[in-house]
Amino acid sequence: MKNFKIIVEYDGKNYSGWQIQENRQTIQEELEKAVFEVTGEHVEVVGSGRTDAGVSALAQVANFVIDGDFPVQKLCLALNAHLPNDISVKSAEEADLSFNARFSAKKKTYDYYFYLSKNRQPIFDRFALQVKKSNIEDMQEACKYLIGEQDYSSFVARNSGKNNFVRTIFDASIQNVEGNLYKFSITGSGFLYNMVRIIMGTLIMIGEGKKKPAELKNIIESKDRTTAGRTVSAVGLMLRSVEYA
Amino acid sequence: MKNFKIIVEYDGKNYSGWQIQENRQTIQEELEKAVFEVTGEHVEVVGSGRTDAGVSALAQVANFVIDGDFPVQKLCLALNAHLPNDISVKSAEEADLSFNARFSAKKKTYDYYFYLSKNRQPIFDRFALQVKKSNIEDMQEACKYLIGEQDYSSFVARNSGKNNFVRTIFDASIQNVEGNLYKFSITGSGFLYNMVRIIMGTLIMIGEGKKKPAELKNIIESKDRTTAGRTVSAVGLMLRSVEYA
Repeated sequence: MKNFKIIVEYDGKNYSGWQIQENRQTIQEELEKAVFEVTGEHVEVVGSGRTDAGVSALAQVANFVIDGDFPVQKLCLALNAHLPNDISVKSAEEADLSFNARFSAKKKTYDYYFYLSKNRQPIFDRFALQVKKSNIEDMQEACKYLIGEQDYSSFVARNSGKNNFVRTIFDASIQNVEGNLYKFSITGSGFLYNMVRIIMGTLIMIGEGKKKPAELKNIIESKDRTTAGRTVSAVGLMLRSVEYA
Repeated sequence: MKNFKIIVEYDGKNYSGWQIQENRQTIQEELEKAVFEVTGEHVEVVGSGRTDAGVSALAQVANFVIDGDFPVQKLCLALNAHLPNDISVKSAEEADLSFNARFSAKKKTYDYYFYLSKNRQPIFDRFALQVKKSNIEDMQEACKYLIGEQDYSSFVARNSGKNNFVRTIFDASIQNVEGNLYKFSITGSGFLYNMVRIIMGTLIMIGEGKKKPAELKNIIESKDRTTAGRTVSAVGLMLRSVEYA
């Protein structure tokens, strides 16, 4: 019996997200098919978390347990030979049997890319959201109210099916990537369904001057989804890293 | 009569390049159709140069002359309303009637993006070439031999139809974008058909240790295409800017 930890990069554009669903193309299913091709075993590939439809990952972490054995140094190449071009296993290592990519995860970081421009920019449209105008300083100031251990009900899709909305946000900031391209970067213990995209929609609302930065505190305290901004498109969202220690 | 200078950004992935060709989707054709929709005039939209099939541009420059008139401050939005999502006019201004986007151009800069990795990286695959291993310092050293006013016959596709292969290269360098992502940046008076892609293929050959950096000088002097590297894929190539002064 072996437990393998893998790091997976994917372009989520053509997938209905991570989690297996009937009649949909998903990342998890592609990985489980590849593991079957390589090991002959039907396993569950457990991800650190589900990414939504259209969301990409630079370094999603997953694990799977096989009854038999497989040489770990050949696993990466072997899996990639059976994966579509938009999913790639970047590294593979043997993990302790107690390791579970979901339950062992301590921190996750998401980036949301956006660009400021009156006109569309097709190069950026591949991976970023167009924002027509925004006050970046106000967005940056609002970020500090996100940090802490709080109930984030205001930022959860109504059909999330969860009832514990408390999470810890360790870090949140707006960074200039280059020129008019920016990213919102957020690190937390975990994220609710659509949480990063709703926070981003709320920061855009603040950047547009429709709410003041300090009002983000009230939005969180209200625990009311209708006080927050829209759920922005998946295009700009990327799971950047998952930490386990 | 008015001459308009426009700056155009496009994702070239779905196009057979800039120049109009029968039964092919091209950037120039889409722009000429949009100009017709907006002004009612059939014009030639002149680009600073032709980009090849699949090549993108962050800031291609073009111009077109209309007999009538059109308010320049509305031109950008009007054209974009008739363009597909992967082509966008970022700015428009009135130019002197003597201005010709092709013949007035003094310098062009192309970027070629690549990443170093044994494994595919789907996020980078959107806009960059995978290079399995390379000595970046050797590639960087080779770049200096590219600079100058030289005959670049060694880097021209055999079916280019040109007979003057002398160009001036003002600058060429390898830059680290972030992590294992790099770009080769080259500024010149003009470029031959496939020239940047063949130079990039040659730099990769040098990075792999198959030729020494100083041998790039011999490759240029040989004026022999067969001494240079392969023509790499269009995926990593981007026209970054065109200068007119």
